[in-house]
Amino acid sequence: MNEDASNLNRRRFLQHTASVTALGAAALVFPTAHAEEVKVPDDPMRVPGALPSPYGVRSPFEQQTRVGGAGPGAPHGWGANTPNNYNSLTPLQDLHGIVTPSSLHFERHHNGVPAIDPARHRLLIHGLVERPLIFTLEDLKRFPSVSRLAFMECSGNTWDGWREAQDVTVQDIYGLTSTSEWTGVKLSTLLEAVAVRREATWMLAEGSDAAGLDRSVPLADEVLHEAMICYGQNGEALRPEQGYPLRLLLPGFEGNINVKWLRRLKLGSAPFMTRWETAKYTDLLPDGKAYQFSLVMEAKSVITSPSGQQQIHPGFQEIRGLAWSGRGQVTKVEVSVDGGRTWQSAQLQEPVLPKCHTRFVFPWRWDGHDTILQSRCIDETGYIQPTRQELVKVRGNHSVYHYNAIQSWRVERDGRVRNIYA
Amino acid sequence: MNEDASNLNRRRFLQHTASVTALGAAALVFPTAHAEEVKVPDDPMRVPGALPSPYGVRSPFEQQTRVGGAGPGAPHGWGANTPNNYNSLTPLQDLHGIVTPSSLHFERHHNGVPAIDPARHRLLIHGLVERPLIFTLEDLKRFPSVSRLAFMECSGNTWDGWREAQDVTVQDIYGLTSTSEWTGVKLSTLLEAVAVRREATWMLAEGSDAAGLDRSVPLADEVLHEAMICYGQNGEALRPEQGYPLRLLLPGFEGNINVKWLRRLKLGSAPFMTRWETAKYTDLLPDGKAYQFSLVMEAKSVITSPSGQQQIHPGFQEIRGLAWSGRGQVTKVEVSVDGGRTWQSAQLQEPVLPKCHTRFVFPWRWDGHDTILQSRCIDETGYIQPTRQELVKVRGNHSVYHYNAIQSWRVERDGRVRNIYA
Repeated sequence: MNEDASNLNRRRFLQHTASVTALGAAALVFPTAHAEEVKVPDDPMRVPGALPSPYGVRSPFEQQTRVGGAGPGAPHGWGANTPNNYNSLTPLQDLHGIVTPSSLHFERHHNGVPAIDPARHRLLIHGLVERPLIFTLEDLKRFPSVSRLAFMECSGNTWDGWREAQDVTVQDIYGLTSTSEWTGVKLSTLLEAVAVRREATWMLAEGSDAAGLDRSVPLADEVLHEAMICYGQNGEALRPEQGYPLRLLLPGFEGNINVKWLRRLKLGSAPFMTRWETAKYTDLLPDGKAYQFSLVMEAKSVITSPSGQQQIHPGFQEIRGLAWSGRGQVTKVEVSVDGGRTWQSAQLQEPVLPKCHTRFVFPWRWDGHDTILQSRCIDETGYIQPTRQELVKVRGNHSVYHYNAIQSWRVERDGRVRNIYA
Repeated sequence: MNEDASNLNRRRFLQHTASVTALGAAALVFPTAHAEEVKVPDDPMRVPGALPSPYGVRSPFEQQTRVGGAGPGAPHGWGANTPNNYNSLTPLQDLHGIVTPSSLHFERHHNGVPAIDPARHRLLIHGLVERPLIFTLEDLKRFPSVSRLAFMECSGNTWDGWREAQDVTVQDIYGLTSTSEWTGVKLSTLLEAVAVRREATWMLAEGSDAAGLDRSVPLADEVLHEAMICYGQNGEALRPEQGYPLRLLLPGFEGNINVKWLRRLKLGSAPFMTRWETAKYTDLLPDGKAYQFSLVMEAKSVITSPSGQQQIHPGFQEIRGLAWSGRGQVTKVEVSVDGGRTWQSAQLQEPVLPKCHTRFVFPWRWDGHDTILQSRCIDETGYIQPTRQELVKVRGNHSVYHYNAIQSWRVERDGRVRNIYA
């Protein structure tokens, strides 16, 4: 065990010597301010507990929530709560492991969350196919099923990185990424059922929200191999905000093309050039041209603790964070505690799965001096997450999407952690 | 794709030819009975959706719940709802993948769910140690952290197997097992902090529920290597029913020794012989003696679909199920569709993790004849899940716990599925 952590607890022990000596049940109970808000007995061992409920809820002492507000394209900040441009950000600083609780999965909406009756919902597959078909949810559940864990990230996650560094939390800038275990039918199974024609190379995917979000999906090998039509998330049905009752899953691709509330797939021989891939979700380059169909989310990482607006104290401090890559598995995460001068390997926690959040940890002892914490992700293709300078050099700073530079957290002398560009 | 599944959808297509021809949005919408209960627009694309909530909930159309009732030792059946002997069973037949939603994780309580204020909760470690310590939750969160997925199974799961075969669901007999991603501190880290004495070979773990459940844990290599003091479950804080704010995790060991609402660890040189390991949770053998400390949950599997009380139809039917072993990884699951005469390998879905539920699938075409479906698990030690006959031969039928024989589901000519002994 780390020596500092051991010292920490030796101190704690000295503070509580009296309680340890007494050893009785009562000695372990201390009054606090929380007791007024939630009915908690002085000694839970003397009061029979409550009966459980058919569908459990978290403790009333746990209050972490998503932060909601207007998304990229709106004036900076979390202002207008209009359903036609709405984000909910996952509280990464409060979460453990790699599975994001469904109730805290990030969201990106273009016209709110539609209310859908699963018994009335249909999926149509048509266009360049031999036999167009309409599937009910029950039909889809009878097909061979598949489950996998995968991260989902909005292409606008960390869009603030293209602007000026604001003093915000990791949730504020990195909260548009989450990981779930998804279950459904492989797209390839359904394409076989409709007998796709040889000339089909693209597929329009359309959602049944009021925005009618639709995107063109290239029928690349990767898509044919990995894409799924999902009805399950983290063991139960998809949550309404993630596309209930059906969504397209394209592991590693930007969030919005994983079309939610999926109602239609149309096979074609060219991209459909919808509003969502022409007026939006393209990357403006320095020369005034725009990248289109930049679908893969490149390797990225962030230290979630310590992170923006947190306050730390000198001594042992485990650095914890998440890394991911739309290209496959994370093979290495390196951490710098001196603003990028030196780098050391972090420990990756099992399981390390392709196209999934990977948890990393790194033991650190803060000596009380001003410093900068950074992490960088290396994925199975050998790609190394770039510095901000390297990224801006290639992409300019007119972009909104696909920012994946190394994040810098400055730890100030008083222990305050602040988002900066370094 | 399977030919039957393809036929199924061709039929579905023929029923809906008119809609496919029309192709418009309205053509895909059909009225159903559900619409009265939940306000759902005729066409969700014509109505702006709702704003999301800070902490999401599932769709009102999803109503799967745990089934609760008196546990083993009480008269057979789900009768008395008394907190001092209570089970809640996970609806395995409704779930996907391997992660159990925390709201549907099984529960086993001996005197209800205590209400605990995390700020007042303490963990004492004492006994054969050089420096007894008391830890707050904040102390524990500052230690090096670790996350892992692991199944949890009540030793009384499938206790019905020792009695007569009842016509019940898979939830009724197998519902006391679930898988979560757990996060916390390694037990070994804390034992280093308190400086355990060389002569310590056992550890008493005590919960702060009104039952004061306490168990003796052998300090075997496996425990020192894998045991954790957990504060996280599936990304967020432990749920109250799973031990909020702290539980002991002993991957692969029977559920109750993974002590919930953990308040005390006492190191000793012999087992403590608590009520919970003498009067209860022992295995009565044919000769009248009892196994004590039979802690490891041996390899087991169950087909969750089709399963008890379900109704199937001739044609393609994917067989889906779960397998797990307290000894490590599942290496193979075999399925029999002819009552054990022949066996074929099922496909294991990724990820296959040690001491975790592993999802298996097997394509099957039901020809409409009476038959019996079975699955058997083989784990990394080479252990093969036994038949009921083999198990009863060794263990007799006076046991309550640790039943892990092959499950038989009889499919009757009318498609009704029934729990039987074969």
